[in-house]
Order: sequence, then C-alpha cells, then structure tokens
Amino acid sequence: MSALPPRLAAFHAAGRDRIGVVTDAGIVDLTESVPWRGLKEAVEAGALGEMIAAAEGRAPDFAESEVHWLIPVADPEKLICIGVNFPDRNAEYKDGQEAPGKPSMFIRFPRSFVGHGEHLVRPPESAQLDYEGEVTIVIGKGGRRIPREEAYDHIAAITLCNEGTIRDWVRHAKFNVTQGKNWDRSGAIGPWLVPFTDPAQLDDIRLETRVNGEVRQQDRTGRMMYDFRYIVNYISTFTTLVPGDVIVCGTPTGAGARFDPPVWLKPGDVIEVEAEGIGILRNGVEDEAC
Amino acid sequence: MSALPPRLAAFHAAGRDRIGVVTDAGIVDLTESVPWRGLKEAVEAGALGEMIAAAEGRAPDFAESEVHWLIPVADPEKLICIGVNFPDRNAEYKDGQEAPGKPSMFIRFPRSFVGHGEHLVRPPESAQLDYEGEVTIVIGKGGRRIPREEAYDHIAAITLCNEGTIRDWVRHAKFNVTQGKNWDRSGAIGPWLVPFTDPAQLDDIRLETRVNGEVRQQDRTGRMMYDFRYIVNYISTFTTLVPGDVIVCGTPTGAGARFDPPVWLKPGDVIEVEAEGIGILRNGVEDEAC
Repeated sequence: MSALPPRLAAFHAAGRDRIGVVTDAGIVDLTESVPWRGLKEAVEAGALGEMIAAAEGRAPDFAESEVHWLIPVADPEKLICIGVNFPDRNAEYKDGQEAPGKPSMFIRFPRSFVGHGEHLVRPPESAQLDYEGEVTIVIGKGGRRIPREEAYDHIAAITLCNEGTIRDWVRHAKFNVTQGKNWDRSGAIGPWLVPFTDPAQLDDIRLETRVNGEVRQQDRTGRMMYDFRYIVNYISTFTTLVPGDVIVCGTPTGAGARFDPPVWLKPGDVIEVEAEGIGILRNGVEDEAC
Repeated sequence: MSALPPRLAAFHAAGRDRIGVVTDAGIVDLTESVPWRGLKEAVEAGALGEMIAAAEGRAPDFAESEVHWLIPVADPEKLICIGVNFPDRNAEYKDGQEAPGKPSMFIRFPRSFVGHGEHLVRPPESAQLDYEGEVTIVIGKGGRRIPREEAYDHIAAITLCNEGTIRDWVRHAKFNVTQGKNWDRSGAIGPWLVPFTDPAQLDDIRLETRVNGEVRQQDRTGRMMYDFRYIVNYISTFTTLVPGDVIVCGTPTGAGARFDPPVWLKPGDVIEVEAEGIGILRNGVEDEAC
C-alpha cells in the first residue's frame, strides 16, 4: 500500500476514548491537547488540518496494535447509505428489473457498525452475514440543494465502510431494507478519517474487498453510477446536510449473496476493504454471545 | 374530545426552548425546576411521572396559544416508522402484490418533522405532499429481543405523528422510500407526550385524520396488522432499543395518494391527527420560502 497522509482517528486506549493523529510511525494522542471531544466536533469546527498540525513533531503515544479503534464519527446527525451504485452489480439482480433512475438509499444507525479491528457480529437469527466494501464521505460544510459543481467543497474527509448486511432480513418486507441493514455491530466504518483536500482523492480511486485474502469486489470510483458530486447534490435536495453527516457511497459487484451458491461470512473470516489513499479497514467475524 | 391526563411538552416561549406539563388549564413551565434539559433526558431518567408531580398545584405559566410547540423528543437515537399496517390500506396498492410477511419499515431524521401548530413545508420540487396519521410510541426502558409479553413495560409515552410524505420521491428508486420520507419539515410529531401507564391507552384506540375537517383516515389500533407488542419485539430483534427511541406505528387507509385522482396537500390546508387519550396534532401547510 502506498504511503498515507496523516489521518484522524477515534480510539480507546489506556482506559478511555481518545482522538488523535495517525502516521506511519504511530498514533499521537491529542485528547488533552485539543478542545474537541470527538471527531464530529473537530469536523464541525473545520479543524482536521489544525489537529494534524498539532501532532507535527510529536512522538507517537500509542502503536496501532495498542488501541481499539472506534467508528470515526460516532454520532452523526445522519448516516445515509447508497444502494446499487456500480455497473455490473445491478445486472446481478436476476429479476429482470432495469437499473433505477435515481439512487436507492437507506439509513443505518451508528450502532450497526464497529470500528476497524473489531469483529462483525453474526446473530443467532441468521447465517447470512454479508460484506459490502464502500467509500464513505464525511460532510464538513452543511447546506441544502448543494450544486454538483460545489459538492466537493462540502466534504471534509473520507473513510471506508464494510456495509455488513444480514441478507435474508433485507427481504423481510416488500419495500425497504431497513432491518437487514441495521443489526447491531453487523458492519464497520474506519479505520480513520483522511482529510479531503484534492478531487483526485475521490474521482477515480481503486476500491477492493478481500475475504481471507481472496479478492471479492474490485472496481474504481470513476465507474460509479451516481458519483460523489451527484450524491451530495441529490441528498441535499430533500434534507439539509450538516457537518459530520456520513454518506456511504455504494458497493461494487461481488457481495457473497451473488455467488451461486451464496457464500456467507462466518467466524474466523477476515474481511479487508481497501481503497487507494484511504487505507485498509480490516474486521473479523464472531458469533453473538447470547 | 374527552379530558386528557396531564402530559409533557417541549415548547419555545418567552425567548427560549422549555419543557413542562400541559393540563387543560394551561402549561406549567418546569424548565428551571427539573434537572433534565429535554424530554429525552426525562424519559431516560424515568421521570415523566415525577415531572407531572412537580407541576401539581402550580398555576400555569403559559396558555397553549402563547407557545411554539417543538417535537417532543428532538434527538432520539432512533426514529423508526412502520409502513403498511392496517387492513384495507394494503388493498389500495393496486399492483396485485400480497401483504408482506413482515412489516416494512424505514427511518426518518428528526429534521423531517415540525411540532404541533407549525406548518408542514411543501418544497418547490414536488406538489405531492401527503399526510399519514399514526400513533407513536416512545421507548422508556431499553432492551434487545424484548419478548412480546413484556413489550408494554418498555414504552414510556405515546404521542401522534403526521408522517408527511413527498409521494413522488418515495418512488425514485426500486427499493426504499428514504428520500420521499425525509424532506425537511414535511411531517409533524406531537403535540405532547402522554405517559403510558395502562394497556388500554394503546390496545384499541380510535385514530382519525382530518383535512380541513373532512375525515380522510379512521381506524382503530385493535385492527393493526402488526400490533405495538409485535413492533417492539421485532425491532429489538435486530437493534438494541434505548430510552427515547421513537417508533411511528403505521397509518390507516385513506392517504391522499389513494384518491382517484390523488388529492395533495396545499397551502391553507389544515391537517388534524387525533387519537383517543392522546389529543389532536394540528398543522397547516406552507410553500417553502426559496
């Protein structure tokens, strides 16, 4: 993986939740050095760059292996996920329906996600835990009816999502995938926030999902049916975006549900979602302790 | 309307947001008398009864006409809405599909709602603003996999929702109604929270929606396809419910979309959602100021 720029993380270490800056040398803890209690507050303050500057020249306080990673933005006002969003993937829906004219979207609660390095949880009610690797954006500047050409100005940071799904519960009702997308700890967001400063960080980056090292999803954001600018414009048509809002921007083809027979995640599996310039979100799987 | 018991409200008056107790004589302001900053905190503390006791014997501080009503729980961790939930209503879906085996559900953001007495907002993008009157429950005791027979123990309060919808945007995508259900200020919740202490408050109450005095929806909760106990049990199967969570429990037949031709809301209309023992949620309509 190519070198990453300094990035922001929320994590638990030495007995408490913390925020800091991650570099390849380790993690600089800024919890006591900055006024923001979490990364959402730092995003609201437009202070991601300021945090990175505050960490410059400081020795790392923790190694990556010493911390438990948390979801970067734990309590966004909104967490919106885009459905079908790459060509080929839609063709896998074998029901003869055509691609929709507008993006399908649904909402997830933050408690349906864990941080980087934590286990996704397979509940006793279903064996159909599935992965979906996705690029995720965090809104920095709010707005309503944001024009496409200004959309990038409203993005503060980027991260990754394993938009883990309990596949059979997605089909419980005729409309809406809500319940299959909201099982506690069934997905992951992270590992960190990379400040968004250059269109090249989103325009056409490689996105890949691996299970136990095997490539299952691989595509480029340049092929998205609804690109990031469209998504920001479209969502902000109906709702006012605010700083800290999280948008999970849709997965490539190749989820486990699309294999014949389907291949579900099970304890012991390791899922990696990787994107150029963002990093690797890695999670294991465990059965829920009931 | 029959007399209502004392009830809890969030409102804006005399320059600030307040909470208090509403009786038929007026509103007792408890903002400075109780430690909870909002009704969600009071629900979390299990203190709705304590608030009502604190107001006993006190003269009202405000008349109902003097306040601007706010959504009772402004920032729930979850705000979940149940779709099709009364017989006959499903028959109005003229696509030949049968009733689903499980309830359809979707999530709304609180900013898609206004309080009692405020205007619903019709955006310039659509003329299809529609009403849906619904009984709404507020979770008081959290839990996961809550048994049906214990479900009522987890409900702290009840209120009403006009689950206002931009109907054409509900159909933008093949799956999911998210965008048609989340226009800023397109629905309403309120007017207040009635503490839930007796199963008879939910089991079989009359629910009615009127537009300009004309009855459009009328049914009884005893006829719900998925009753309140089922809903609490089912949702808590996949997500941990927490105090303050709001569940909007589905509408009877008779929304404007089902008329032939459809009848949409327009500025000047007054929509009233009324239920026995809860009260009347009343809202006008205005065009968005763009």
